[in-house]
Amino acid sequence: MSDLPKEIKIVEEGPREGFQFEAGPIATARKIELIDALSTTGLKQIQIVSFVDPRRVPGMADAEDVVRGITPAEGVAYTGLWLNDKGFERALATQRLKVSGTITVGASDAFLKRNQNRTIKEQIASQHAITARYTQLGIPVTRGGMMAAFGCNFEGDIPVQRVVELVGEILAIAQANDVSLEYVSLADTMAWATPLAIKRVVGAVRDKYPDLELSLHLHDTRGLGLANAYAGLEMGVRRFDAAVAGLGGCPFAGHAGAAGNICTEDFVLMCEEMGVATGVDLDALIQCALLAEDIVGHPLPGAVMKGGALARLRAAKQAS
Amino acid sequence: MSDLPKEIKIVEEGPREGFQFEAGPIATARKIELIDALSTTGLKQIQIVSFVDPRRVPGMADAEDVVRGITPAEGVAYTGLWLNDKGFERALATQRLKVSGTITVGASDAFLKRNQNRTIKEQIASQHAITARYTQLGIPVTRGGMMAAFGCNFEGDIPVQRVVELVGEILAIAQANDVSLEYVSLADTMAWATPLAIKRVVGAVRDKYPDLELSLHLHDTRGLGLANAYAGLEMGVRRFDAAVAGLGGCPFAGHAGAAGNICTEDFVLMCEEMGVATGVDLDALIQCALLAEDIVGHPLPGAVMKGGALARLRAAKQAS
Repeated sequence: MSDLPKEIKIVEEGPREGFQFEAGPIATARKIELIDALSTTGLKQIQIVSFVDPRRVPGMADAEDVVRGITPAEGVAYTGLWLNDKGFERALATQRLKVSGTITVGASDAFLKRNQNRTIKEQIASQHAITARYTQLGIPVTRGGMMAAFGCNFEGDIPVQRVVELVGEILAIAQANDVSLEYVSLADTMAWATPLAIKRVVGAVRDKYPDLELSLHLHDTRGLGLANAYAGLEMGVRRFDAAVAGLGGCPFAGHAGAAGNICTEDFVLMCEEMGVATGVDLDALIQCALLAEDIVGHPLPGAVMKGGALARLRAAKQAS
Repeated sequence: MSDLPKEIKIVEEGPREGFQFEAGPIATARKIELIDALSTTGLKQIQIVSFVDPRRVPGMADAEDVVRGITPAEGVAYTGLWLNDKGFERALATQRLKVSGTITVGASDAFLKRNQNRTIKEQIASQHAITARYTQLGIPVTRGGMMAAFGCNFEGDIPVQRVVELVGEILAIAQANDVSLEYVSLADTMAWATPLAIKRVVGAVRDKYPDLELSLHLHDTRGLGLANAYAGLEMGVRRFDAAVAGLGGCPFAGHAGAAGNICTEDFVLMCEEMGVATGVDLDALIQCALLAEDIVGHPLPGAVMKGGALARLRAAKQAS
């Protein structure tokens, strides 16, 4: 027994994060192959594409074809990412994705300027407008999100108080539009978090909003991803984004080492070995990670697919 | 402020772990180049070679030449590793190393059988004999060490109680030979530890031996190395082994992914960003990690050397 959560939810973002980031072209059929394989692992939500400008992100130009090509599995929600109206309309037009709105803010003016050409205030204003529009269209708005919540390559440290205030802005936008959010996601977009920072920021948000469920989106650019996720578990966080094999990264984060999210299978091993249920079949997920390496054609950061699952070694020992 | 230790000691093991593990031959001069570079970073102890059978570990056949070739830096202790009398005599003969004895036990019969062809009991008996011999020769015995303290690929989970008992065996050997150990190192030789296991094992040893200083030697084979190190910091552990760039691994651990220790520069970044002083110049250490990659001729696991130090980004922001 421990004080860690009994179970958590993982949103798989490998296909979106990964295929968006890779330099070379990847065949649509192979993207579909990975998504269909991930659908059999027990993961309940998979972000499979982003609807972004194909001139800026050529790896996602085939987003519609990918969505059309998958074989949806019972009980799995497939989602896409968009950053503007055009992307939203493309997502809606597929008629195969779980489309729900996110109220997205950013904690760094400098990052927002580069990523979306807006200030923090302009971003907040835009979210009021977009939430109203979602509501008019009957699209549920279920999630808040904050980019660069732990620091920014272009702005440096982000004051904890700013994060708390921006959570308040998200909740105010939700309230003004009469929508009820399931959770708010704090993203360490540029990998500035440490375990101690996770505890401080999550703790400060909890102090102000004790009933708000939080999610963590942790990039592993400086190697601290799983340590940060563990600190999140210690704080009782029960929702995490992750990417199979450690696929991906943000192409606009401005550094060569823009590593992806925490690696899903490494995170699943850590959780399951500590008695935190993920609902994911680790062996099946490791096969997906090996498939992902085969698809991108180069080694990916995941460790467990090379080092092996412990449950397998235990079983081999018992059989011998 | 936090409850983490104010400062910690890092033993750099990259040259020994790394050059022992690499498949191809590495020029002696390049090994020396890395060791001399590490000597300028603020690291106070560097394990630079192992004195092992060159037929089993050809990468260490030039151990004496490496020791002879370095330019010792003031205040830096250089050490070597040995596993038997012959290795010990080779280390002593160099006359340039800090030679001190370790009382080494292993928590897994199956691992000891493969690694040293002994049972746990035979290993304990051998340590009584070797400690007596060190003492007769006037060699200080300063350290206890336990291999496979958190689990074993060939034996599975290791009961916490066995670890506590084996720490007792180490202390009994020390007492019987009238030597006073500085600390006992618990090694996660085959990467079975989770953060929760670190807390449980360290906690159980502390309960029984509250005044005993502990050290952690954490392999990163399953990606949990830094999360485990963070759990150690939370338990107040103040000594850690690490390997620059994540060099190395144990060639006898029996799996392809035998990754090395936690990466020194990633660990230093995590510590320094949390206010835990390491005494190490991170920028200088990153240069060493890049040098290590150049020397081995392939990418190494370290993340910060690709992702960049945060202090540098803060400074760039202030200058702009």
